[in-house]
Amino acid sequence: MEAGGSKFVCAVGTDPGDLRRETRIPTTTPAETLARAVAFFREFHDAGLAALGVATFGPVDLDPGSPTWGFITSTPKPGWMDTDMAGPFRRALSVPVAVDTDVNGAALAEHRWGAARGDDPVVFVTVGTGIGGGVLVAGRPVHGAVHPEMGHVRVPRDPGDPFPGACPYHADCLEGLASAGAMRERWGVPPEALPPEHPGWELEAHYLALGLAAVVAVLSPRRIVMGGGLTGQPRLLPRVRARLRGLLDGYPRSAVLDDLDRYLVAPALGERAGVLGALALAEDALATPRAPGG
Amino acid sequence: MEAGGSKFVCAVGTDPGDLRRETRIPTTTPAETLARAVAFFREFHDAGLAALGVATFGPVDLDPGSPTWGFITSTPKPGWMDTDMAGPFRRALSVPVAVDTDVNGAALAEHRWGAARGDDPVVFVTVGTGIGGGVLVAGRPVHGAVHPEMGHVRVPRDPGDPFPGACPYHADCLEGLASAGAMRERWGVPPEALPPEHPGWELEAHYLALGLAAVVAVLSPRRIVMGGGLTGQPRLLPRVRARLRGLLDGYPRSAVLDDLDRYLVAPALGERAGVLGALALAEDALATPRAPGG
Repeated sequence: MEAGGSKFVCAVGTDPGDLRRETRIPTTTPAETLARAVAFFREFHDAGLAALGVATFGPVDLDPGSPTWGFITSTPKPGWMDTDMAGPFRRALSVPVAVDTDVNGAALAEHRWGAARGDDPVVFVTVGTGIGGGVLVAGRPVHGAVHPEMGHVRVPRDPGDPFPGACPYHADCLEGLASAGAMRERWGVPPEALPPEHPGWELEAHYLALGLAAVVAVLSPRRIVMGGGLTGQPRLLPRVRARLRGLLDGYPRSAVLDDLDRYLVAPALGERAGVLGALALAEDALATPRAPGG
Repeated sequence: MEAGGSKFVCAVGTDPGDLRRETRIPTTTPAETLARAVAFFREFHDAGLAALGVATFGPVDLDPGSPTWGFITSTPKPGWMDTDMAGPFRRALSVPVAVDTDVNGAALAEHRWGAARGDDPVVFVTVGTGIGGGVLVAGRPVHGAVHPEMGHVRVPRDPGDPFPGACPYHADCLEGLASAGAMRERWGVPPEALPPEHPGWELEAHYLALGLAAVVAVLSPRRIVMGGGLTGQPRLLPRVRARLRGLLDGYPRSAVLDDLDRYLVAPALGERAGVLGALALAEDALATPRAPGG
């Protein structure tokens, strides 16, 4: 199950070529949305449903020792704070339930079946309503104090950009400057209404490259997959690559970083990365039955 | 062996309580410095020297498939570019030789014996002549396209700071704004000559907190250990914590991040973290005999 801010995508299957049933549930209240999702999966209980993966918007508590493991925590999404994303399914389905962020799930799916096969570490960045990132090291999602929240990295503001920033927590963090909402507030129209030659796209590419440069400095991933609604703008990814090349400026020296066309790529799974990430989480829950939720 | 820009620290032993011999070799030319280090370790060959760990300044090629694995790459240090840090020892000693960055080594030592025991992920940051960082996930150092180079993260400049930055590659990256050299250039005196109440320390704390906020956003480590010469300034660490608290501003919500006195800490091993990191690398080279250099 991919739990998103506007819809939940529920599917049943064994791999990307075998998703047997799929449904989309609009995200309303937690009680209603989760009840509909539980009802969908309960139909497959007798057919041998073995595990459930939940790839969710966040932030989410992923500390295995916490009494609120699997709960959404400080989300700005009304009504969803402190929602238990695992319990209702575990109680109704009696199967292992794995929970991770949507972006850690997407990283897992791209690593297993998509654009980052065999790469280590892998970062998956999504740029849309919000900006988020997932990290895999040795093929496993990374959690720590919380989990990566790459949208909230502070980047230098462009001196010519008077927009104060749209993040309710940090104003002008990366998400505050470069999410779809930030673009809409800055330019007065939704991003899809900005023509490709509008300077807003170059500014967007600049901010995203600054965020990715921070990712490279902190973690040095072997590949970065960048998806999300805004990356549908056909000239954005090449522009981000050009800006990132300028920011790295050849240091540190690296054949991998020199080849940015292969280093920074679109998701091979497209919009399927989210639900396939949930499938990958379910697979891993079966492989490690004593993991939280198992 | 801890290979530093000003000295190499060579030691022989089995754990932090058993370092039987230790010597310091000034860093001159690669040929002279490495020959003296080889001579030191060769004395222990017949006594059963089992493996060598090299924790080195960098950047260093850590790609196991690369023909220049273990070579220093694009260092600004005169004469040291393209120096093979493993080959001379492997040929002279016939033991497994592990190579990693000094900061990955220090992270390993603090994780095994120091201030980050049992924590995952762990980040070790050093602030001195340069600024660098190492990352452990599941107890193992992280490498990817290259390795973490946290000193080169771009941070927003303070609007009141006219200093252009001291990094030869990026000008005003974190290292360019906040290394000891940057402080000396900005204030005209070495950092140790700045009194504790000088505003330069508050600016320094601000920049370091911005760098650490990027680390938290990208990786969400479970603990950060911060060492290096500048952190000897007794009021710096509390100031960095206060600034970091302001930057995170409670998002994402986390009991771990709320307790910054325990989250951001000084190295328990002090200046020994470097050479003990090398010892930890040697231990791991024995445990994984087919690793590069083995």
